[in-house]
Amino acid sequence: MAPQQSDTGTAAQGLLNWFGAVRARTEAICRPLETEDHLLQCAPQVSPPKWHLAHTTWFFEQFILQPLAGDYRPFHPRFGHLFNSYYETVGEPFPRSRRGLLSRPTLAEVETYRRYVDDYMRRAIETLSATHCLELERRLSLGLHHEQQHQELLLMDIQYNFSQNPLRPAYHTPDPAPKRKAPPTAWHAVTEGESTIGHEPGGFCFDNEQPAHRVHLRPFRIASRPVTNGEYLTFMEEGGYARPELWLADGWATVQQEQWRAPLYWFEGEGNWQRFGLAGAQPLNPDAPVCHVSYYEADAYARWAGARLADEAEWETVARRQPVEGNFCETGHLEPIPVEAEADAGDTPQQLFGDVWEWTRSPYLPYPGYRRADNAFGEYNGKFMCNQMVLRGGSCATPAEHMRASYRNFFYPHERWQFAGIRLAEDA
Amino acid sequence: MAPQQSDTGTAAQGLLNWFGAVRARTEAICRPLETEDHLLQCAPQVSPPKWHLAHTTWFFEQFILQPLAGDYRPFHPRFGHLFNSYYETVGEPFPRSRRGLLSRPTLAEVETYRRYVDDYMRRAIETLSATHCLELERRLSLGLHHEQQHQELLLMDIQYNFSQNPLRPAYHTPDPAPKRKAPPTAWHAVTEGESTIGHEPGGFCFDNEQPAHRVHLRPFRIASRPVTNGEYLTFMEEGGYARPELWLADGWATVQQEQWRAPLYWFEGEGNWQRFGLAGAQPLNPDAPVCHVSYYEADAYARWAGARLADEAEWETVARRQPVEGNFCETGHLEPIPVEAEADAGDTPQQLFGDVWEWTRSPYLPYPGYRRADNAFGEYNGKFMCNQMVLRGGSCATPAEHMRASYRNFFYPHERWQFAGIRLAEDA
Amino acid sequence: MAPQQSDTGTAAQGLLNWFGAVRARTEAICRPLETEDHLLQCAPQVSPPKWHLAHTTWFFEQFILQPLAGDYRPFHPRFGHLFNSYYETVGEPFPRSRRGLLSRPTLAEVETYRRYVDDYMRRAIETLSATHCLELERRLSLGLHHEQQHQELLLMDIQYNFSQNPLRPAYHTPDPAPKRKAPPTAWHAVTEGESTIGHEPGGFCFDNEQPAHRVHLRPFRIASRPVTNGEYLTFMEEGGYARPELWLADGWATVQQEQWRAPLYWFEGEGNWQRFGLAGAQPLNPDAPVCHVSYYEADAYARWAGARLADEAEWETVARRQPVEGNFCETGHLEPIPVEAEADAGDTPQQLFGDVWEWTRSPYLPYPGYRRADNAFGEYNGKFMCNQMVLRGGSCATPAEHMRASYRNFFYPHERWQFAGIRLAEDA
Amino acid sequence: MAPQQSDTGTAAQGLLNWFGAVRARTEAICRPLETEDHLLQCAPQVSPPKWHLAHTTWFFEQFILQPLAGDYRPFHPRFGHLFNSYYETVGEPFPRSRRGLLSRPTLAEVETYRRYVDDYMRRAIETLSATHCLELERRLSLGLHHEQQHQELLLMDIQYNFSQNPLRPAYHTPDPAPKRKAPPTAWHAVTEGESTIGHEPGGFCFDNEQPAHRVHLRPFRIASRPVTNGEYLTFMEEGGYARPELWLADGWATVQQEQWRAPLYWFEGEGNWQRFGLAGAQPLNPDAPVCHVSYYEADAYARWAGARLADEAEWETVARRQPVEGNFCETGHLEPIPVEAEADAGDTPQQLFGDVWEWTRSPYLPYPGYRRADNAFGEYNGKFMCNQMVLRGGSCATPAEHMRASYRNFFYPHERWQFAGIRLAEDA
Repeated sequence: MAPQQSDTGTAAQGLLNWFGAVRARTEAICRPLETEDHLLQCAPQVSPPKWHLAHTTWFFEQFILQPLAGDYRPFHPRFGHLFNSYYETVGEPFPRSRRGLLSRPTLAEVETYRRYVDDYMRRAIETLSATHCLELERRLSLGLHHEQQHQELLLMDIQYNFSQNPLRPAYHTPDPAPKRKAPPTAWHAVTEGESTIGHEPGGFCFDNEQPAHRVHLRPFRIASRPVTNGEYLTFMEEGGYARPELWLADGWATVQQEQWRAPLYWFEGEGNWQRFGLAGAQPLNPDAPVCHVSYYEADAYARWAGARLADEAEWETVARRQPVEGNFCETGHLEPIPVEAEADAGDTPQQLFGDVWEWTRSPYLPYPGYRRADNAFGEYNGKFMCNQMVLRGGSCATPAEHMRASYRNFFYPHERWQFAGIRLAEDA
Repeated sequence: MAPQQSDTGTAAQGLLNWFGAVRARTEAICRPLETEDHLLQCAPQVSPPKWHLAHTTWFFEQFILQPLAGDYRPFHPRFGHLFNSYYETVGEPFPRSRRGLLSRPTLAEVETYRRYVDDYMRRAIETLSATHCLELERRLSLGLHHEQQHQELLLMDIQYNFSQNPLRPAYHTPDPAPKRKAPPTAWHAVTEGESTIGHEPGGFCFDNEQPAHRVHLRPFRIASRPVTNGEYLTFMEEGGYARPELWLADGWATVQQEQWRAPLYWFEGEGNWQRFGLAGAQPLNPDAPVCHVSYYEADAYARWAGARLADEAEWETVARRQPVEGNFCETGHLEPIPVEAEADAGDTPQQLFGDVWEWTRSPYLPYPGYRRADNAFGEYNGKFMCNQMVLRGGSCATPAEHMRASYRNFFYPHERWQFAGIRLAEDA
Repeated sequence: MAPQQSDTGTAAQGLLNWFGAVRARTEAICRPLETEDHLLQCAPQVSPPKWHLAHTTWFFEQFILQPLAGDYRPFHPRFGHLFNSYYETVGEPFPRSRRGLLSRPTLAEVETYRRYVDDYMRRAIETLSATHCLELERRLSLGLHHEQQHQELLLMDIQYNFSQNPLRPAYHTPDPAPKRKAPPTAWHAVTEGESTIGHEPGGFCFDNEQPAHRVHLRPFRIASRPVTNGEYLTFMEEGGYARPELWLADGWATVQQEQWRAPLYWFEGEGNWQRFGLAGAQPLNPDAPVCHVSYYEADAYARWAGARLADEAEWETVARRQPVEGNFCETGHLEPIPVEAEADAGDTPQQLFGDVWEWTRSPYLPYPGYRRADNAFGEYNGKFMCNQMVLRGGSCATPAEHMRASYRNFFYPHERWQFAGIRLAEDA
Repeated sequence: MAPQQSDTGTAAQGLLNWFGAVRARTEAICRPLETEDHLLQCAPQVSPPKWHLAHTTWFFEQFILQPLAGDYRPFHPRFGHLFNSYYETVGEPFPRSRRGLLSRPTLAEVETYRRYVDDYMRRAIETLSATHCLELERRLSLGLHHEQQHQELLLMDIQYNFSQNPLRPAYHTPDPAPKRKAPPTAWHAVTEGESTIGHEPGGFCFDNEQPAHRVHLRPFRIASRPVTNGEYLTFMEEGGYARPELWLADGWATVQQEQWRAPLYWFEGEGNWQRFGLAGAQPLNPDAPVCHVSYYEADAYARWAGARLADEAEWETVARRQPVEGNFCETGHLEPIPVEAEADAGDTPQQLFGDVWEWTRSPYLPYPGYRRADNAFGEYNGKFMCNQMVLRGGSCATPAEHMRASYRNFFYPHERWQFAGIRLAEDA
């Protein structure tokens, strides 16, 4: 859907269409929610849906309309404070853990805010495209990819918030997922050699995907599909959560402190394991990829299985050869589903894209030569390059057009509310 | 408004009217709120307005309809859990600090719940009155006084919740308070002797007001009016919050830990002291009673002033001789205002009722001979008789008909979000 | 041992003897300790033995030598800070929770400090007695009673500290306690009437025991002996810790949070209940008074037993008629033991003094007419008159001469490391 | 001092000498301490000196005497629990944060424990050397390097513990450090190319230094000396701690929460900056390397300076070419000192070894092909390979023979009590 550039008029139209589509998609995600649901913040790392609606709007206001649209008048004098997420260089952000305390502005006011900014944005796109304003395109593109990131966050946060309610409300009622058996795991071998990772010129990417650079790969094998719920259950049944030798020290400490005994959202009920998802509580599907595990759990599972996780160079090298297709949010499942068995798949890696983000064993670090921008854009990614681990491939909650092989997601190793799963690798 | 009993039909009608009036008043309090406001719980001790709406309804369902109305079918199988406040003997209460996490049931569903229970209640009142069911009247009376308590809690909680929003929303826009000067404090003397305190037979009271009993009073004097904002400001200016010798040890520790420098809701802005109230931020009125102080602050102020707080026997002895009139919630001010100077008042205590709850120096204890009921009603008051202090007289947020001289309110000594102020006393 | 006053020389000698005896007793308590034990602070409310040795010395330095002995030079310029417990009006106390972080001054240095101050004190006693300095005697008396309080605290704190060590070290190896059966509980009745409580002129008392005053007693009965371990075990076996209806709300919350299932120091081992004490781990003696229970547990036990706790006026009225005798620290048991059965005891209350402090249901409040001193002595007791409950009668760790019927001890209702037990009462 | 192997008798003698020397050195470090100092644990990450003395002994008992010396009888049945640090696979470790609560065993008992184990160890070395027991040598070597690590920890922990005492005790009184000016920083360039890092066969190393492997280096420059106190002061004076754009997000959050304004141990006094060290409080030496900074501070300083930290491959490549010499603990300074200016040094990196551990920007990760052992030795290093950053080069508290170019130390990015400093690097 990201536009192809041609002449000015068409370019503006393309941008307008794209802008409209992304903005509409965010609102569509919120449509099944009740007004009350928009205010929920059931954990400090979760944001209320209303806040997402406002913050994504603030991003355009702060980084496009205020600096580039000369006649812009801010919608509200305090929104610059309230809806700044973490950009310390453009003002004092409202504390993250208090976002759920803001009943005002109301949802209706936030919707008005969106309309107000959308109108200005449409005019700015038309005007600035006419002047071949590359800076506009650059910032607009960033703003829309930013909003797509929040589309996934919205789904993550809604699922978490709803899970805290004993009534276990369902966000949606999807069509039944296809009944499939997970195929056996095959091991796809990659020989030693040089590889390029990172985003090469052309098309959008975040700064953390750059610069593209050569890496040396040692020979390795990677599993043809992610670990399933059924496999993970075996790990649990064999004492996975009770054997310290399987865990990193910080992981084991977390298991003890948080009393982890299963992935997030799993619970025992009616004689078997269930999991809570956007469709409410459901029996666990043993053939679907395991989801909502932390890095610590992914690492422990891999050790138990006699394997390891891939690093991001290995992952990206394999993923570059695959089409960016899969169970993304557009399928409407909004949960991982078993892969479709292909007769001739052999050991070709499946499901690298969509379904679940795959934990790598790579800490989130700058690529060689990366320089964090001096201004607020330097805060977008660069300041988080410590203490977090990289995940790859997108999930059932990611917009398809948002994904690419070089895309780097990152979370703290203890976090589990993102749609994160496990793909095994091993030294060859 | 509480009904006078005559023949059966009239009695039923009286109860129905009373029931309707109290229930309607609760909803009227919530009417200025936005849907989003109903979900707010900005501190663990505060409850969301929606929860108050549901919990007061649950009280009738749990204690009248289920035990007394044979045909009653509960509205929802889980509401007995969700809206049980603290009655451990009738099921497991949903944790207090998590009430704000319940976006469902929605406000609309809670309103339907209220209608559903109201309908059953009306039928129960008609039916059971016909059979002279005294237990119904007893429980109905308790349920309605219970709901009146929550009417005040609603206003307290709304004010607190709104105070946490940097936008400082106003709950209402009242008529201007009368411009009055606080009269000088006079000291009303009471001589040594016997007195009776506690509720004597006739009319409703809570169990904690019983039994009425004789007490011996030493001679004392009590101030003719509460301490004003202006007087409290002098305490602050003379280093009140920086002088440990004025404070109880636990009070001083709280001052240090919480960094208290002024009453709750006071802030410095635009060159002077302001306070946040249900009408939003306003300049401090030096003639109005000081409000939203803790017991620790009331005690320290009294020590600084060379006085002390009254105990509850002293307070009640004086209050019994005064009419139960004052600035209750019906005046619509919803904040304490200066007393109206009466030409011939002399040292007659003013404002004992309404405006601000007055901290006494009496810990909240059972009266001699008090017995906590064995059932859930024993949990209503009795189990809180430890670690809390008694306050008397009602406030600008209390329904007038809810108040009487023997009424005992109670809060922890560090709590400040209730409408609590200071009246001085001294040994004669 | 407190001296009888006669002529000056004898008076000085009496004071010197008393001073020497009390100071020596403190050191005797510490003698079984290893140097390392003196530094232990295993909980914030516990102080290291070395700190007790220094603080009791600081008390004489601060309140006698510095103000009254003109030539006194402080031992160390920082000890006034380090060993000030909570007297905010004479300087900034070193934070209580950090007392265990002071390896320096060493124990040897603290012992030198004691010698240094003792020498000055002896000279001051001789000099000032010669001038009939009543202020000296008053302050000396306070200082020595203060040190006796710390003698009990030392034993409490040593027991707590040792309990945290998996090696369960024993502080001492006492002679075997006498093997006795607890007699059946009889109920001693007191009729309605006036009584005087509080300390009447003559002899030492703390300010919180004054003024003596008349109280009206309703008729009541009080148990002839404290509750035993065996009786408490029955409460436990009948679900005492699992029945919320028996508990105060704050007590129940504490039971849940702290996972209380038995008194402090009880543990299950070798097939039965054991308790840890100053003699190490021992099988539970069912006939000895239960000890190391909180107010919450005492209150819940009483409710379970269909009784209540006495208030302090009731307790003191009964205790005034009994000799101040019992199992105090001088017996060397240092734990409560069963009462010796007396053939003709009838319902005479036994063991009011010694063995265990008895929780009353009285909050710790000023007596009518009490005035907290303006200076540091006002901090000794007065500032703690909030949130705590009164205990009476002394324990197996209290010096006998320290006790009297009017003595008021006080602890927070959740605290259990003091030697606290239960005596039942009931309305007549 | 690590022995050269020749014939059996000599080998045994070499091992015995080495064992004796390392064990004696640990005790020498503790010699200036008072008995009380041995018990101090002033923060959860710090261990009491007595615990270090016992734990290093336990290591030999657990991993050599018990498995290899057939006749060994453990010194005490509970020491295996008390002095196990974190080896979950050989029993339940006593909780780290409670180590300071163990007054028993006393220091004298721990010294007896050391003697007891030393005697057995000497016999085991003689016996097992005679049988060419390679496993003994392997484990002995590990045990002695382990004890050397604790020698540095002892000094770190003593400094931290003493810093918490307002008396600011000095651990030692060293000879005055040489008065030197820090030379200007030069930049040592390394060209692009292949390099080998990791420990190559021969001599002792920890498992985390293996396997040696080839890496590709991009061209870079590295500073000729560490950042000095004076340079760091300029960073502070230019608002370093108040400019969020200089910091990683987690670093900035830590600065806010911990109120960091300077390195650990710095304080303002007597009109200038002072720092607390093992010699007590001293004026800050602007020419000495800055020490006791976190990774966050090192990273922010580098960003402020327009540079970055080296990664561990860069650091090791440079360090391999330098002799392992410097200001190690044997110099007796026990604090970083200015480098000695060498006339012809040019841009040769100085002080890579000793003085301060140098933060790299490398997360602590397994080298390619690293496999964590399945047994307890796998817990030595492998389980910590998450959330920590690598430091290189040893410090003024490291034994000289313990260091080598491939040595990898690791701490959490917020930790500051180790002797950690900053060396800058930049892309060429």
